Amino acid sequence: MDPTAPNRVASVGHRQTGPRWDRRTADLLAGSAQLTDEGTQLATADFAGWLAHRGREHASSVRRIDFTDLKGWHFLGQTGNLVHQSGRFFTVEGLRVRTSAGLFPEWHQPIIRQPEVGILGILAKEFDGVLHFLMQAKMEPGNPNLLQLSPTVQATRSNYTRAHRGSPVRYVEYFTGPRRGRVLADVLQSEHGSWFYRKHNRNVIVETRDEVPPHPDFCWLTLGQLHELLQRDNVVNMDSRTVLSSLPAAADGPDRRPARALSPDTEVLSWLTEQRSTHDWTIAPVPLAGLPDWHRTEREITRGDGRFFDVVAVAVDAASREVPSWTQPLIEPHGEGVTAFLVHDFDGVPHVLAHARMEGGLPLVVEVAPTVQCVPENHPADKRPRYLDQVLAARPAQVRYSARHSEEGGRFRNAVSRYLLVDADEALAAEPLAPEYAWLSVRQLERLTGAGLSVNVQARTLLTCLRSMAKPVPAADDKGW
Amino acid sequence: MDPTAPNRVASVGHRQTGPRWDRRTADLLAGSAQLTDEGTQLATADFAGWLAHRGREHASSVRRIDFTDLKGWHFLGQTGNLVHQSGRFFTVEGLRVRTSAGLFPEWHQPIIRQPEVGILGILAKEFDGVLHFLMQAKMEPGNPNLLQLSPTVQATRSNYTRAHRGSPVRYVEYFTGPRRGRVLADVLQSEHGSWFYRKHNRNVIVETRDEVPPHPDFCWLTLGQLHELLQRDNVVNMDSRTVLSSLPAAADGPDRRPARALSPDTEVLSWLTEQRSTHDWTIAPVPLAGLPDWHRTEREITRGDGRFFDVVAVAVDAASREVPSWTQPLIEPHGEGVTAFLVHDFDGVPHVLAHARMEGGLPLVVEVAPTVQCVPENHPADKRPRYLDQVLAARPAQVRYSARHSEEGGRFRNAVSRYLLVDADEALAAEPLAPEYAWLSVRQLERLTGAGLSVNVQARTLLTCLRSMAKPVPAADDKGW
Repeated sequence: MDPTAPNRVASVGHRQTGPRWDRRTADLLAGSAQLTDEGTQLATADFAGWLAHRGREHASSVRRIDFTDLKGWHFLGQTGNLVHQSGRFFTVEGLRVRTSAGLFPEWHQPIIRQPEVGILGILAKEFDGVLHFLMQAKMEPGNPNLLQLSPTVQATRSNYTRAHRGSPVRYVEYFTGPRRGRVLADVLQSEHGSWFYRKHNRNVIVETRDEVPPHPDFCWLTLGQLHELLQRDNVVNMDSRTVLSSLPAAADGPDRRPARALSPDTEVLSWLTEQRSTHDWTIAPVPLAGLPDWHRTEREITRGDGRFFDVVAVAVDAASREVPSWTQPLIEPHGEGVTAFLVHDFDGVPHVLAHARMEGGLPLVVEVAPTVQCVPENHPADKRPRYLDQVLAARPAQVRYSARHSEEGGRFRNAVSRYLLVDADEALAAEPLAPEYAWLSVRQLERLTGAGLSVNVQARTLLTCLRSMAKPVPAADDKGW
Repeated sequence: MDPTAPNRVASVGHRQTGPRWDRRTADLLAGSAQLTDEGTQLATADFAGWLAHRGREHASSVRRIDFTDLKGWHFLGQTGNLVHQSGRFFTVEGLRVRTSAGLFPEWHQPIIRQPEVGILGILAKEFDGVLHFLMQAKMEPGNPNLLQLSPTVQATRSNYTRAHRGSPVRYVEYFTGPRRGRVLADVLQSEHGSWFYRKHNRNVIVETRDEVPPHPDFCWLTLGQLHELLQRDNVVNMDSRTVLSSLPAAADGPDRRPARALSPDTEVLSWLTEQRSTHDWTIAPVPLAGLPDWHRTEREITRGDGRFFDVVAVAVDAASREVPSWTQPLIEPHGEGVTAFLVHDFDGVPHVLAHARMEGGLPLVVEVAPTVQCVPENHPADKRPRYLDQVLAARPAQVRYSARHSEEGGRFRNAVSRYLLVDADEALAAEPLAPEYAWLSVRQLERLTGAGLSVNVQARTLLTCLRSMAKPVPAADDKGW
């Protein structure tokens, strides 16, 4: 990027004002969401075949290895931290959390540090008047099925500044230079606060009018097609889900927003602010060596009691990545997660039951999270997370959405959760709430998501799933979806 | 605070939806802004006399002392960090900043660490149909004139949990418990990023209908009266200025917001996001002992070249504080600052020239800052900060606002800046901008401020000053003020 180039904010409309909100975006998104069966390039029915074909083109294998078989990675003598010899990519260190909140006043854990802001970017373009999104079939070693659908660009700074001397990142110029298109969304969002230390990425969607050179690993899909694919297990990867969550509401704009909710927006922001300032915490990186409760074997860093996660190492042989083969550490959680929002329509306006959740690695420590976010086996029967039993006991008719999705396959191995949207019955919806819970309208969840660094990545996935089920309705009838 | 009490978001309107935006707030604020000469309690003309009287009631003295005369404070043996024996309040440590941005790839500096979220709270109440704000005459040792007007509550957690075993903080129950009133604003805001490490406070305004017990150090003032007092030097303290900046725009609400600006809101957010992700930085607390370029004498920690600031110690004798006398460290900058927005009306819509500024201690490293923010003497003639000369050369007719204000007097000593709003002429307004600058409408600056942790404390002071000059206009004529 040329730092001397005049920026877009400066150069567009430098003398003339224009509207602060653009209805064209809302109309384009609504139109794109309506096409669920086919776009201009690939029918939804042909998608699985296309992805399988890409998989055969890039036959890949991933296997667990000993730490001593890592190439370029080693444990530092003094701290025991796991680092790359280039000093880049990421490191695995220790974290100590002390807090006045919750049941555990102090704990230690390994955590990934990667102090750089990556780009998760989706390129959008109109074909025949319908907005399409350029998605990539991307192999990541931690995905249970290796190949999933990623954003157009999914790159750490190390990637796109080519610290690893690999191939250039395809299409990255649409996101880093003086832009060629119109920005639909561009916001910082946190990543997993239990496994990353203060990591956040730029989530950006740019619409171009250029001819975009095709590539066999990429395909253009409508928003409706992406919504269809979100009904399937392990197809749309985490990075795609979070970027899509940052899109403005399909029917947005100041005169189109449903103006009703259980609580005014000011009270919702106040609730989050209060939850962020009610407790003390001291969070500090510490050496990985000698981390209390954890020990290192030849093949893993583990607690040994089967809870939470291990740090492991893998060897990757893949033809489709910028670098053809490599080794790296990954975090591997134990057990399948349950990630769910309880949902309820109040006066016909859909709401979710949000949890202000503290995670040691979040940039601002507390963010809005799903009602339930846990691996059930981690919790003894007498200390079940709140609302877990209600979610698991839901009758089929109460389950509005259910699919398995996996987390960032570049850092996490087999990190799969059941993502659920479960109807809360009237009795549950009328129960008083503990201070860290609140009913937010879907629009309020969207607003907090659009502000950045306020809604965690699991809740953002669920927001994308929520939207994937919405029937587009005329703006006049819009009740909040 | 009782953590088991049902929260407000849960308990208010639990079954029924209501409007997400409340016009009553906008109307109350507009009405309160119109009364500039008198409220129901104290005429503006009598304010100076009242404050002087409070000063005589609380005769205070502050004097510089040697570090060895600090009581309860000492330098830790190993790190040389300056700490309090209770382990609370704050510490003075070292900070190392490495960055790919700007002229200086690495620097070291002392910095204040205070890992707790304080409360800056203003209580509001209607008298005779006009909203008044409860302000406090508060002595702070770093203020050049000691006594200034502070929010109703200005308390660190150490204060209001009574870590120092002093008196309880008056009126704090309006902000920490299940609230007695209606929230007008409640948002986290950063403090000085050059002097504090990741410090942020809760900025909160609550409207009560209770009878509020009076106290001679407190007075009720209208928004118009506060605006009048902001025209004077060193009266309205930093904490008051930042809390007032968090108020919603007087004519807010989705159908009242001026919908025009030079750039759409999406582009403005994109500009800030890009500026937050364009550069690498590594920011780490380091020991104060042996900090490169700095050394410690008996009376100060200093660079010795007269630039930036010193760490000093003072003894305070004051009757009005929760604790009658104490000693403490303070940061004392060298020279008077210049803090200015260039402003320009495009198509009649007022805009400010914003700077995406990196400060080592900011929670998210980059925030929106004034066009100019510096102490001119720190910069050699050949490395003048951009736009400083244009601001200093402004003709009187171009200066829309000018007053001296001081920064947080509980931590900073004689930290005074000239706060300026300077008209940019047509030629300057038409110049191309470097990527880290952008013209934002005042409403866009307000929106970013309302989101929290996006606009730095100096720019928030200037926003409050901007609003203090606005003539209230009927909503139909509203062009953006």
